[in-house]
Amino acid sequence: MKIKINQRDLSKHINIAQKGISARTTLQILDGILLETYKDKLKLTGTDLEMSIETYVDCEIEKEGSIVVNSKIFGDIIKKLPNAPIYIDVDNNNINIKCENSEFNILGNSAKEYPDLPIILEHTTFQLPNDLFKSAIRQTVFATTQDETRPSLTGVLLEIVDNNISFVALDGYRLALRKLPIKSDVEIKIIIPGRALNELNKIIEDNDSNIEIATASGHIVFNIGDTVVYSRLLEGQFFNYKEIIRKDHKTSVIVNKKAFQDSLERASLLAKEEKANLVKLSIMDGQILIRSNSEIGNVNEIIMTEIDGEVVNIAFNSRYILEGIKVIDAEDIKLNFMGSLNPCIINPLQDENYTYLVLPVRLAQDDF
Amino acid sequence: MKIKINQRDLSKHINIAQKGISARTTLQILDGILLETYKDKLKLTGTDLEMSIETYVDCEIEKEGSIVVNSKIFGDIIKKLPNAPIYIDVDNNNINIKCENSEFNILGNSAKEYPDLPIILEHTTFQLPNDLFKSAIRQTVFATTQDETRPSLTGVLLEIVDNNISFVALDGYRLALRKLPIKSDVEIKIIIPGRALNELNKIIEDNDSNIEIATASGHIVFNIGDTVVYSRLLEGQFFNYKEIIRKDHKTSVIVNKKAFQDSLERASLLAKEEKANLVKLSIMDGQILIRSNSEIGNVNEIIMTEIDGEVVNIAFNSRYILEGIKVIDAEDIKLNFMGSLNPCIINPLQDENYTYLVLPVRLAQDDF
Repeated sequence: MKIKINQRDLSKHINIAQKGISARTTLQILDGILLETYKDKLKLTGTDLEMSIETYVDCEIEKEGSIVVNSKIFGDIIKKLPNAPIYIDVDNNNINIKCENSEFNILGNSAKEYPDLPIILEHTTFQLPNDLFKSAIRQTVFATTQDETRPSLTGVLLEIVDNNISFVALDGYRLALRKLPIKSDVEIKIIIPGRALNELNKIIEDNDSNIEIATASGHIVFNIGDTVVYSRLLEGQFFNYKEIIRKDHKTSVIVNKKAFQDSLERASLLAKEEKANLVKLSIMDGQILIRSNSEIGNVNEIIMTEIDGEVVNIAFNSRYILEGIKVIDAEDIKLNFMGSLNPCIINPLQDENYTYLVLPVRLAQDDF
Repeated sequence: MKIKINQRDLSKHINIAQKGISARTTLQILDGILLETYKDKLKLTGTDLEMSIETYVDCEIEKEGSIVVNSKIFGDIIKKLPNAPIYIDVDNNNINIKCENSEFNILGNSAKEYPDLPIILEHTTFQLPNDLFKSAIRQTVFATTQDETRPSLTGVLLEIVDNNISFVALDGYRLALRKLPIKSDVEIKIIIPGRALNELNKIIEDNDSNIEIATASGHIVFNIGDTVVYSRLLEGQFFNYKEIIRKDHKTSVIVNKKAFQDSLERASLLAKEEKANLVKLSIMDGQILIRSNSEIGNVNEIIMTEIDGEVVNIAFNSRYILEGIKVIDAEDIKLNFMGSLNPCIINPLQDENYTYLVLPVRLAQDDF
């Protein structure tokens, strides 16, 4: 392999391919990026076998070929080179890199040692605007579980039905649901691993392009310009979440998002992780009273607002309620309660496209 | 104690006082900030007994008093409060903090439990412009040792003689010397702990004010506007550094600082810490050749330049040579050599006010 390539372009695409590589891999070859000449481009591949990223950069090819190079060393070298043409010349497993007055020789591995990635036959395809896809990831993926014994909940359910696409994540303590209208007749119900979505969110640029998504048997493929991200889908049944999002409420309250978030953040300063970050809300008499206490001290926060319905005393893990509120992009939010033992349902005001549901911590009423 | 105080001012000064507190303290009271009313101000004190910081904030005092409050909790609470007046009311050891609709009660400790800090009788005083003092710290303190068995080298020597002030740090591998002219007739030779200088560098603002420095028996006092930093001085003799900065050289070379730094940084990508981060320099034939190799591979860097004097092959720990070059604020630097076994002396071009000296790693000439 012998190529000439622009330093900035190569460095940018190494960065993309690296997102497919797991820091925890035990297979040495998977620490590497597979470099291959492909038509008039250099193709870079990174994978952890669960997901893989292929990304293409323009280059001048003098001789075709392929090699696997340690992604960290290669990335560090290319990043530190000046913004000038780079000449890469591979002879057997020796990789010679020249750029202005710098010359590196590093040892690679034969591309033959690199695992074969599955050939995926795409069938159902649809498109989503970049910005909407990114916001849907941001508003849901944090609510997936880290608990590997419940594999389907480590991912986000993606469901398309009746020209609506839903993203759903839940971990047994809270649920995040984002809905979007979509111009597509396909019907899909799949679970995408949280890690793939987190990496996609970093790769996709914030512009008004579209991302093209294709599903295949057991796999999903994301086409983002010159980059293709493949991921296995998670197997198993997703929790039947629709039943728990009730529409009947006994208490509703509209509150300024920032004021509520700030008060919860202050109250959580005195909440302790070993005590479930407990914060108590009392909703009554035109105000929300937020309290927390630990051996360090206690805090009272008052937010004046209109209350619709009956008095409710309810307690939450401050982390779970805060994480959902933080991702809402709205000035005001609506909180709906059904007594102190049922979940609280949070929506942006006048926008049913995002729903966050959080379970309370059960406390005796005397403890309020 | 009962006071009214501005949130932003208080938060800023908590941040300053916190720099006096050590994360490694074993005395619980030293995790705290001592709050005391003093004339029409609130005085905040943080100390690790080696250094202490006193800082003053304007406030309205309704009732005099004092209390010790955990610096982390107090800092977190004040930082999260809205930018509005804060009311602090201390009753016994209970601290009540109110701000708009927030109310905190936290437990403090009696000011009587706080250690008495030494009363320091200042004698010799002098002044330095903030920016020059900060640059002198930045250019020297990194070269102090972390080795507590050589206590005097954990600090920076400050010497004033003949209207010149010198800052000197060395650790047995390299030496950093910054000189400044000073309008002062005092004569001083003291060693200031590195930690105190590092914290000072964070506290002193980048403006054209002066810092007022006073020495006393075993102590030094820095007056920076509304903040006073005290530090113990280090005892013991400082290494007699003047002898090792030789003026005779066999080889001199002038090089662009950025080009040289970039090449060294690239070469050090393949240098390994367990092998002393070894980089080899060959200075001859109008060029500097920089090489490094490890089991990962090898690198050659060439910098074209004028060489004055004889050929030299010399090896360095890349970390030690790089750290000195990074802090030099000049376009070109001059490197002086006296063979491959003697230190390399680096100055900014046409500026003898900064000198960096780095010892070579001894290699057989065959190894070049």
